Amino acid sequence: MFYEKLDWRYATKAMDASKAVAAEKIDRIIDAARKAPTSSGLQPFQILLVTNQDVRAKLSAAAFGQKQITDGTAVLVFAAWDTYTEARIDGVVDLHAQIRGEEVRDALTAYYTNLKGMYVPRDAQTNFEHAARQAYIALGFALMAAAQEDVDATPMEGFDPAQFDEILGLKDQGLRSVVALAVGYRDAANDWLAPAKKVRRSRDSIVTEVK
Amino acid sequence: MFYEKLDWRYATKAMDASKAVAAEKIDRIIDAARKAPTSSGLQPFQILLVTNQDVRAKLSAAAFGQKQITDGTAVLVFAAWDTYTEARIDGVVDLHAQIRGEEVRDALTAYYTNLKGMYVPRDAQTNFEHAARQAYIALGFALMAAAQEDVDATPMEGFDPAQFDEILGLKDQGLRSVVALAVGYRDAANDWLAPAKKVRRSRDSIVTEVK
Repeated sequence: MFYEKLDWRYATKAMDASKAVAAEKIDRIIDAARKAPTSSGLQPFQILLVTNQDVRAKLSAAAFGQKQITDGTAVLVFAAWDTYTEARIDGVVDLHAQIRGEEVRDALTAYYTNLKGMYVPRDAQTNFEHAARQAYIALGFALMAAAQEDVDATPMEGFDPAQFDEILGLKDQGLRSVVALAVGYRDAANDWLAPAKKVRRSRDSIVTEVK
Repeated sequence: MFYEKLDWRYATKAMDASKAVAAEKIDRIIDAARKAPTSSGLQPFQILLVTNQDVRAKLSAAAFGQKQITDGTAVLVFAAWDTYTEARIDGVVDLHAQIRGEEVRDALTAYYTNLKGMYVPRDAQTNFEHAARQAYIALGFALMAAAQEDVDATPMEGFDPAQFDEILGLKDQGLRSVVALAVGYRDAANDWLAPAKKVRRSRDSIVTEVK
């Protein structure tokens, strides 16, 4: 089942605007993204869940007119932290103490103080790139959850991040859009990619065994 | 089931060296990583499947002594392309034509010629960062597949990439190690993290709805 869904999913090029994905399914897809592991548990990104049609029309225009953004039910925009700050990392420690109990705070503080010493003085671009990578793990989790829900999805990098940031007001929040995921139901009759064979490098090509 | 596995998995800190993961399970985990979508279908990374114990001991030493690398059954090292080249992108076109038929070559060549025009002149670091992000999607797929197989796994960034590259001979292949995944079975009695509650930001904290 799990592996069949891997073969079933594809980067949908045409969504059927007449079919809506149930809110519970979108919630579970987001929950999978939220559960994804990230470096030092930082979860250094925000997920914008955009259903507003006007906003989606603007995003589509900033994404070379890709219609999956408007014809799908929603688009998730993964926006990474623009850098690491003391306050952001302190928030992670607070969350740990809140969930696991105050007794973990001292040990965690030592760990995260060291992390702050490494990350905070680093240039913002390096920190942003690190945060962006973590968002891609969450993207992977969202993609697989969508497939489990029989929901079609289109991962997208083909957009102008500066325009996305402007439309969504991300800059003032210290966020930068990195990747988007349109979710909906495929319009198979109008999607040239729907019947195409999946193209992947062979195992022998992509794997190097060191025995 | 799928969602329960999301809660079951965690970044295992202690692996039980006496238990080996079956080769078929590792094959399926790798297959999930191989099936992950990537930008323009480039799959710009290699997966090093390291079982050799001497090599794993060296990798562990280059990863602050993390014992999951040696106590697990294998470690997967995701190594991204150091840059995009004409030859690498031509290889993607060839693979498409091989799988979907020569009749797709012309349309693809137009698309990928445009891509080469954008990527090949770009600085190597920008291309590498882009490739690295794609490897993280595959990492996400591998993590979820491991959980489906009831296999424990530890995603790791905490290593010296230059040393990993040296140990695995990656530089000469135009590859750079970005993230690793140890797979094995947890040694729950000796793993402080095994009983700990999962810490994740709440849905309200990580999601911004644009309705």
